[in-house]
Amino acid sequence: MFNAASGYWTLHASRLLDELKAFLRIPSISALPAHKSDVQAAADWVTNKLTSIGMEHVRTIDGGPDRHPLVYADWLHAPDKPTLLLYAHFDVQPVDPLTLWTSPPFEPTERNGKLFARGSADDKGQGFILLAVLEGFLKTAGKLPVNIKVLFEGEEESSGEHIEEYVNKHAAELGCSAAVVLDCGMYEAGLPTISTGLRGLIAAEVTVTGASRDLHSGEFGGAAPNSVQSLAEIIAKLKTPTGRVRIPGFYKQVKRPDKLELDSWARLPFDEHDYCVNHVGAAGLIGDRRYSVLHRTWALPTLEINGITGGFSGDGFKTVIPAVASAKISMRLVPDMDPQAVAKLFADYVRKVTPKHARVDVKILSASPAMRVETNNPLIQACAQAYKLTFGKDPAYVREGGSIPIAGTFKHVLNAPVLLTGFTLPDCNMHAPNENLDLANFHAGIQAIGRYFTLAGELNG
Amino acid sequence: MFNAASGYWTLHASRLLDELKAFLRIPSISALPAHKSDVQAAADWVTNKLTSIGMEHVRTIDGGPDRHPLVYADWLHAPDKPTLLLYAHFDVQPVDPLTLWTSPPFEPTERNGKLFARGSADDKGQGFILLAVLEGFLKTAGKLPVNIKVLFEGEEESSGEHIEEYVNKHAAELGCSAAVVLDCGMYEAGLPTISTGLRGLIAAEVTVTGASRDLHSGEFGGAAPNSVQSLAEIIAKLKTPTGRVRIPGFYKQVKRPDKLELDSWARLPFDEHDYCVNHVGAAGLIGDRRYSVLHRTWALPTLEINGITGGFSGDGFKTVIPAVASAKISMRLVPDMDPQAVAKLFADYVRKVTPKHARVDVKILSASPAMRVETNNPLIQACAQAYKLTFGKDPAYVREGGSIPIAGTFKHVLNAPVLLTGFTLPDCNMHAPNENLDLANFHAGIQAIGRYFTLAGELNG
Repeated sequence: MFNAASGYWTLHASRLLDELKAFLRIPSISALPAHKSDVQAAADWVTNKLTSIGMEHVRTIDGGPDRHPLVYADWLHAPDKPTLLLYAHFDVQPVDPLTLWTSPPFEPTERNGKLFARGSADDKGQGFILLAVLEGFLKTAGKLPVNIKVLFEGEEESSGEHIEEYVNKHAAELGCSAAVVLDCGMYEAGLPTISTGLRGLIAAEVTVTGASRDLHSGEFGGAAPNSVQSLAEIIAKLKTPTGRVRIPGFYKQVKRPDKLELDSWARLPFDEHDYCVNHVGAAGLIGDRRYSVLHRTWALPTLEINGITGGFSGDGFKTVIPAVASAKISMRLVPDMDPQAVAKLFADYVRKVTPKHARVDVKILSASPAMRVETNNPLIQACAQAYKLTFGKDPAYVREGGSIPIAGTFKHVLNAPVLLTGFTLPDCNMHAPNENLDLANFHAGIQAIGRYFTLAGELNG
Repeated sequence: MFNAASGYWTLHASRLLDELKAFLRIPSISALPAHKSDVQAAADWVTNKLTSIGMEHVRTIDGGPDRHPLVYADWLHAPDKPTLLLYAHFDVQPVDPLTLWTSPPFEPTERNGKLFARGSADDKGQGFILLAVLEGFLKTAGKLPVNIKVLFEGEEESSGEHIEEYVNKHAAELGCSAAVVLDCGMYEAGLPTISTGLRGLIAAEVTVTGASRDLHSGEFGGAAPNSVQSLAEIIAKLKTPTGRVRIPGFYKQVKRPDKLELDSWARLPFDEHDYCVNHVGAAGLIGDRRYSVLHRTWALPTLEINGITGGFSGDGFKTVIPAVASAKISMRLVPDMDPQAVAKLFADYVRKVTPKHARVDVKILSASPAMRVETNNPLIQACAQAYKLTFGKDPAYVREGGSIPIAGTFKHVLNAPVLLTGFTLPDCNMHAPNENLDLANFHAGIQAIGRYFTLAGELNG
């Protein structure tokens, strides 16, 4: 079943890497307004590439002054074959602190078999893998083994609003057999990995007011309520000492992962002591000991205080009784949890446990659901088979603790299974200085996705 | 018993007020390095005034480059009479926010019988009362009814270190029958007031560390400890829901105020609903209901969170698990409590209630004792009598919830009773915009302190 494209990728490996470097030199930081034209330049780069390799209907989709563009293209000449919707993003994270980078973030540099640059892992390097695969087929066979729609975005690292709106408005046009989201990583080097679920996210802000203004603690201490004290008491009531969330009904909709997943997790190499000491760097872990760490971080909902502020926290000391204190609080949701219902449980509980002498304001800033991937879907299994052929191992089925909202949108709006996968390694420094892409994985990734398209083309559409 | 000085103060009322205005025009903000020369100018102003009215041994005491000066003077020609050590401070608070001032803070302005200017109440206006009293006696009788030592400072609103060190080093030279600290106020207009106690202060900082760095809440949520959560749990354990401090032994050394005080407090006008709504501006008060609000704020120790910080609290949202969180925490102590012992109880308790998965660092930044005034001392009673003669009312004996460390130093180092009193009103806006001094109180204050010196002069030294 191997084909000419495979040889093409090997023959052109060096030139493809050079092209990726050019792509990485564009500082397309979507969160910083000063880089808006760079994000546009990255969109243009993708558009040109898609055109030059022979994709059709290539276009940049403008989102207006406050948004970054999308890029669309398709090739739909494989009748009766599946249609894959390919997703990646061409914007990148900011680069601060610059001093911690060994080589400049936008000057791609090879060291020790890795390519260092902002975006090399997240997500230009992986998006480029998809482009290289398309090129290989089109330049050798002159056609693709499956129908392809490409939808890349330029604001995954900022709002992500443009693509959400676009997919919702153009669901029919984007119809597909499966969506392929190449924005994840491998569990460890050499172990191909497919993500079977993403957690959803509720973001909230809780603000507590005590007195009408900051008061002198000598004058009013002992009588006036203290907003920080009240907020701390609320936060302490959100969890048990071991970290189980105490909001009544919080876990009610949570279902146990299926046996395939649990068995897969049990086989993964995991050393809790090493994880605690070297990955977390803490004196101990929290969480319900009846579940493994992977189970807790992948398949149980969580609640975290992301930030707190109140009163005086500068240099020196100011003996005030703070009038106002607030906390940013987020919850990660697992499949089957209704975000709106959970947000309401949270808000009701916070109000209930707020001391009588305090006033509380609970703002729900966003609430998006978790997503589950049906691993037995043939278009997921085709990928698993391609991975086994390429890497010599069955893939690990893992969940992502994080959230990729567009994956949920693909699933729910397009009613399509979503293949969540990728080739970054745990030490790729995503979102951090010295972001890197393993070069062996880059080339293997091209071969693996090529094999996947070929195997998917053996299925009926 | 009235005398020529009384007429002098009436005759010279307008000129004395003009002099006070000149004193107030000096922007002697001790906390701001840019105003260092202004604090020196205020010291020089006091020195010149003391010299011009006939005080002896007048001198500015330099504290070196990092400190503000003290001013000393004396008049010791009343053998067998008591010696009073007069204290006030000639530095002032910063003036931000300037936009909230109706007239410029350093352009003294009369409105509605009040003199508006930074320092008018705290404490230049009150220091000037002492200077005017000395002037009246020296310019009419040519002598004072008691021996007088003057020690004014220029950094009460910043560190206060210079005077503490000076008093400790020169205790013999500063020996006195009583210290007079004119840096307090009246409980309400028309009600002369003597403070019978000041609370001590422990300032502490508690820092909690969870993981070695901020972690992604999606990746590590459910396993990694959250420093803000841990700190909130510690804070929640510091107090009962009604605000009683839970540190074992915290209240052990606290003694019940004597009957004279409790009776005096019971007679004070106090409306708890008005206090809660209009003074505190809260939905409710906290504290142990077995004690009145005045009892709680004056005669019980308290613990307050003065500020808290941890994680991300800027605009937007960052789903981190914060590695580090910290809180500034202060305790107000009442007489008989040992600051070092209480600080240790606090630190031990915080360490004990810190979750096992967190690391905690407790720093005690300062610990000073409370002070009690023996109201039956003849030099305190002489003041009470002078107040009754001037204002037509027995004074209220109140405690100050706040702390004036130098008062404790006078008491403990000089072994002298300390008269804590003053003539500012509750709406004097001390430390705030539109600080003011009631002009009727200013003139009555001069008469009252004049009477006090006369009555004190009838006692044996």
